[in-house]
Amino acid sequence: MTLESQRSSDAPGWVARVRLPEPSLQDNTADVDRLGDALKKEFGLATLEVDLSLGRRLPALLRENHFALRCLVCGDRHRGVLIHAGPDHTRTILAGLAVDLGTTRVVMRLVDLDRCNVLAETAFDNPQLAIGPDVLARIHYTDQPGGLEELNRLIIDGVNRHLQRLCETCGLDTDHVHLISVAGNTAMSHLFAGLPARWIIREPYIPAANRFNLIPAGQLGLSVGPLAQVMIFPNIGSYFGGDLIAGILYSGMHTGSRTAILVDVGTNAEVVLGNKEWLMACAGAAGPALEGGMSRIGTAAAPGVIDRVRIDPRDGEFHLHTIDDRPPVGICGSGVIDLAAQLFLSGMIDIRGRFQPARCGYRLQKRDGLASLTLVPGNQSGSGRDLCISQVDLDSLVRSKAAMYTILETITGTMGMALGDLEIFYVAGTFGSLIDPRSAITIGMIPDLPLDRFQSLGNSSLGGATLALTRRSLPEEAERLRESITYLELNVNQDFMNRFSAAKFIPHTDASRFPSVKTGSL
Amino acid sequence: MTLESQRSSDAPGWVARVRLPEPSLQDNTADVDRLGDALKKEFGLATLEVDLSLGRRLPALLRENHFALRCLVCGDRHRGVLIHAGPDHTRTILAGLAVDLGTTRVVMRLVDLDRCNVLAETAFDNPQLAIGPDVLARIHYTDQPGGLEELNRLIIDGVNRHLQRLCETCGLDTDHVHLISVAGNTAMSHLFAGLPARWIIREPYIPAANRFNLIPAGQLGLSVGPLAQVMIFPNIGSYFGGDLIAGILYSGMHTGSRTAILVDVGTNAEVVLGNKEWLMACAGAAGPALEGGMSRIGTAAAPGVIDRVRIDPRDGEFHLHTIDDRPPVGICGSGVIDLAAQLFLSGMIDIRGRFQPARCGYRLQKRDGLASLTLVPGNQSGSGRDLCISQVDLDSLVRSKAAMYTILETITGTMGMALGDLEIFYVAGTFGSLIDPRSAITIGMIPDLPLDRFQSLGNSSLGGATLALTRRSLPEEAERLRESITYLELNVNQDFMNRFSAAKFIPHTDASRFPSVKTGSL
Repeated sequence: MTLESQRSSDAPGWVARVRLPEPSLQDNTADVDRLGDALKKEFGLATLEVDLSLGRRLPALLRENHFALRCLVCGDRHRGVLIHAGPDHTRTILAGLAVDLGTTRVVMRLVDLDRCNVLAETAFDNPQLAIGPDVLARIHYTDQPGGLEELNRLIIDGVNRHLQRLCETCGLDTDHVHLISVAGNTAMSHLFAGLPARWIIREPYIPAANRFNLIPAGQLGLSVGPLAQVMIFPNIGSYFGGDLIAGILYSGMHTGSRTAILVDVGTNAEVVLGNKEWLMACAGAAGPALEGGMSRIGTAAAPGVIDRVRIDPRDGEFHLHTIDDRPPVGICGSGVIDLAAQLFLSGMIDIRGRFQPARCGYRLQKRDGLASLTLVPGNQSGSGRDLCISQVDLDSLVRSKAAMYTILETITGTMGMALGDLEIFYVAGTFGSLIDPRSAITIGMIPDLPLDRFQSLGNSSLGGATLALTRRSLPEEAERLRESITYLELNVNQDFMNRFSAAKFIPHTDASRFPSVKTGSL
Repeated sequence: MTLESQRSSDAPGWVARVRLPEPSLQDNTADVDRLGDALKKEFGLATLEVDLSLGRRLPALLRENHFALRCLVCGDRHRGVLIHAGPDHTRTILAGLAVDLGTTRVVMRLVDLDRCNVLAETAFDNPQLAIGPDVLARIHYTDQPGGLEELNRLIIDGVNRHLQRLCETCGLDTDHVHLISVAGNTAMSHLFAGLPARWIIREPYIPAANRFNLIPAGQLGLSVGPLAQVMIFPNIGSYFGGDLIAGILYSGMHTGSRTAILVDVGTNAEVVLGNKEWLMACAGAAGPALEGGMSRIGTAAAPGVIDRVRIDPRDGEFHLHTIDDRPPVGICGSGVIDLAAQLFLSGMIDIRGRFQPARCGYRLQKRDGLASLTLVPGNQSGSGRDLCISQVDLDSLVRSKAAMYTILETITGTMGMALGDLEIFYVAGTFGSLIDPRSAITIGMIPDLPLDRFQSLGNSSLGGATLALTRRSLPEEAERLRESITYLELNVNQDFMNRFSAAKFIPHTDASRFPSVKTGSL
């Protein structure tokens, strides 16, 4: 697999081949300086740092290879670091590791830095889950003696362990991994670097660092090449992390002339609006209902999880699709959105999201005093239990979708735009890539735009981390981006609440905003 | 002792106190970034590198000290490195070590980086003398397996050992030494850094490095503070080392409007001519006679060594001064120059440097077939042996002084100047500081300038290394200097040989050049 070409394009990477003029009495520049000058020119660097161990080997290396070398450099225009120098013609792979450092899940991609292709990929649960399920719990844990070190050790060991396996699958020695890029939220980035995180969650919410220098991988305890360096994506603040910066870079919205919106839906909805001229970001609680967090049966995408729902408009029959076609065990976020849209279109719920007993028929029952709709009876489910959703689940979903819509309305409104002005609508995140935009429009979670304006980015944070390994301009793009984003503090004032109340209908109080949603077609 | 104030002046050093605005909801810059931004502004840096270990401690450190810290930074405008951050008000000394890394002798000076005063000084023989007496022998030794490592280990161990003692004398822990500056010739700098030196002495004479990055002291095996950094003065090439760059910086001639010449006399005569507008350098063999290298009795300055000679014009009596007034055991360079001048003034040698038996009297004898003059009979010497100089010694001295004069004449002539145009004449080196300019003029080694134009710099290389510890602009001054110096290749052509021949007379064939030298006054 070659990396998506429209994104990494032909932008130069971190590997360069240099053929130096051989020294003479007329040109007796020193060896390290000779290579350094060439690389500074090639990479546009003010300084190039050559580790002593490399400098000591360089005179022989240059002469053995007739002054032609393949070099791996990283850094920015102020300071470059030479990570590797070796023979020009060789099959030795110079590998890099892109890490999407999620609070729950970590995804890693091994990349050939020279050919710019993917070697292998893996994903694993963040080992810090053993300490606490979320950012808050883990940061509180760092207040215990040794807590920070333990959390740091867990993630570093996890990365080492899975990198080892990843390398084995492609017959690569971990010593050949020279560059690591890490995109995570502010807290995860701190715990990865072993930086104190306690002030992130305490007023006035101060991270230890928003910008990270290149860090020698050895200092972090990573088992990779001896001179390997680690790039951690910068944060904007406690509330806006490097994972989002990576996502924006991956989308390319910061370089486009068309105004785009990028939505990363999770427990928080993180939203970025703009184009190459300006960027505005905000974040707000969109509620757990949007990330498979529905009580009892909500779950993250996994085999047997319902991810697609259709209700036959003629007979009201439920057609459920599960991941890997396994017997159903739960429902994930995209399934819930599909379900709500289909229930609405079939008239089984009304515009307030209330079950309509006449339409629901035998599926609707009282359980624990709550109206509850059975999706899958126990004898057909993978778990042996009935899979149901209750009125409470639905209410929660409606609040979440209303929050999302209100956030989108607020941020575009702040820029004096209407939602219809959005030229590209990027949906980021694994969850985002599964959502059917028609369903999300039907329930009024996202605006009623032509479907061709929606683009799913997949794991944009991993995509951005991969770009950092293959595009040498990325650190500066990230820093410029960081500095150019205006952060919009969402004030939950009367205006916001009015919008939110109006959005708590399906699709909206003002149905004219959703002309494509035709109701009651059953 | 405070460092010579006219040189270190009030230029800011590497220590800065910063009081940061405390974070708030309105100003939630991250901790590392907050300190970094302040220090970048204070030091005029594009980037500031904060070691992870320091970054991890910083949030607590800032809060414990109410956001006021004393910081030690080094680097240049492209890249600064934070070496230390600690409480603002403390008696803890932040120390630096200046090293004059001589081929023969190493001189070290411990400096308080904050108060900019000298704490202690020491000198010791370069332990590499055990391997070889000179640069050439040591570089050849690096061709043996492990040879480079052994030479490197010898000097590093020597520095560690003597630093330990130096620190003990002022009750300082070596952990408090945070910055080390090293001024040595090209070969010594390479051996200190463990860089391959073999190509320095082989055509086309390519050093491994002319410019050195900051090197973490730990990487060099130096037992100092954990984040200590080492600055090695840059070289211009194999023939012009960091010791000379340090010397020029110490003299200040690169910032003066008056045209100065700096002469560092050793086995090689290294000469720099210029002012703040331009600088030209050259080097040439001036012969061992000028550095106590006279056969049999020549020696470096040490107790019992003759450093001053007067011959009474009335009775021809020799008045010899020895270092520490100990019984004479040899004669050093300044003594030899004095002696030659006095022999000439007393008529004991003629303008060709030949002994005049009629004037020399009983002191002149044949030894091993050579005319030889006894300075000290064995029964008065510290060694029990006669101290003599032969006609061969004198001839050698005359050739050396003629070479020196010719070099001075050539470099000034190249710039279209006469020797009389030199407004300041700096004499560098321990040996230089002992020379009596009147004697050097008398024998025609240096031009007949008014005596107030001569300035002895003492150990200018140590002086420059000290400046590097106390003046933050120094690395860039050194780099600018390195780039601005034009190196004059001395072509030993007919023109040079004609000048040399004319200079082999005392003081010169053209006696009108030395109006102050009145001969035959005995």
